[in-house]
Amino acid sequence: MMTRQMAEGAARAAGRPRSEKAEKSIIEATLEMIGEGIAVSELSIEGIASRAGVGKTTIYRRWSNKEDLVVDALATLKPPLPPLRGDSVRDDLVAYLTVIKDESRHSRTRCIMNIAMSDSDRHPRLAARFDELAIQPRRAVMAEVLRRGIERGELRPDLDVEMAMAILSGAMLWHTKWSHRSTDLPDDLAERIVDEALRGFRPR
Amino acid sequence: MMTRQMAEGAARAAGRPRSEKAEKSIIEATLEMIGEGIAVSELSIEGIASRAGVGKTTIYRRWSNKEDLVVDALATLKPPLPPLRGDSVRDDLVAYLTVIKDESRHSRTRCIMNIAMSDSDRHPRLAARFDELAIQPRRAVMAEVLRRGIERGELRPDLDVEMAMAILSGAMLWHTKWSHRSTDLPDDLAERIVDEALRGFRPR
Repeated sequence: MMTRQMAEGAARAAGRPRSEKAEKSIIEATLEMIGEGIAVSELSIEGIASRAGVGKTTIYRRWSNKEDLVVDALATLKPPLPPLRGDSVRDDLVAYLTVIKDESRHSRTRCIMNIAMSDSDRHPRLAARFDELAIQPRRAVMAEVLRRGIERGELRPDLDVEMAMAILSGAMLWHTKWSHRSTDLPDDLAERIVDEALRGFRPR
Repeated sequence: MMTRQMAEGAARAAGRPRSEKAEKSIIEATLEMIGEGIAVSELSIEGIASRAGVGKTTIYRRWSNKEDLVVDALATLKPPLPPLRGDSVRDDLVAYLTVIKDESRHSRTRCIMNIAMSDSDRHPRLAARFDELAIQPRRAVMAEVLRRGIERGELRPDLDVEMAMAILSGAMLWHTKWSHRSTDLPDDLAERIVDEALRGFRPR
């Protein structure tokens, strides 16, 4: 006898590949168009559907509006962080900043992010949702690393966690923002930022 | 008798106001169009001339190509730094970061800068000239402040000046980049960044 769960499983197994493929094409088409310099305000569900080779209803089945689709598309450019080992605050911070650095080397990612973010003043809802989906979860990880460092006595008990994050991520942002070629960034950049910052963060 | 110099002076006195006015309209039209989301690759001298209400030759008399005009237009958004007093490295750094913070409050400036920079991967020459004209002179000022601090013993003799700049400017950049409203930024942000950073920069 087939249970409802089994039936659903079978339906998913049959249905998912096609719908996943469509979803991937839709996401890819959206990123492609943004990457070509089409402003979010100029993007249309119709245009994306046509580029992706799907019907508009296929898009609307998954996303109720353009902003949500753009946010999901942008979020795919931010892969989840690898698990941090938690052995030392220095190692975890270096691992974290290395991910941010490596991301910035993908010029397509950088280009699309820049374009999308340049529009954020005009699309506050898009910016807010992207923040919630892709920025805040990462910040939470970094704050956790710093708080663990304080608890263990590796960092000053009065360290301003928010400001420490601004210093660490900001120093990496400054380097990636102004370097026009990925080869401009030294291999040990993450280590150098962390070691310089930790001089002020460690207990005296 | 009128010397050649006097004649030139008189011509300039009569000619400058009109040409300055035209120049201002051209710059303003360029910024306006970038601010409306017109990509640098889509901008044309013809379009700018028409928006500014001048002839194309008036533009070409001053700028030989579009990129140079865009760079000059963008540079007007970056006012020169006020003179730094040089009394203490802390005060100078706070004054410097306050200028950067205040700039970011002008949403038009921010919007135009973001748009222009989002195009920088496609316009490496534009990005390079902007860097030379607007970024490097500021960096030189900040490096000078830090070097003076080292000389005076206010900062560690082995401080990595480039990394210190990345930490200070980066921490401000991080705050201005992710805050969607100018009111999100605390009034004493520059002081807080400088005081946190100096904990690691001062001699032990």
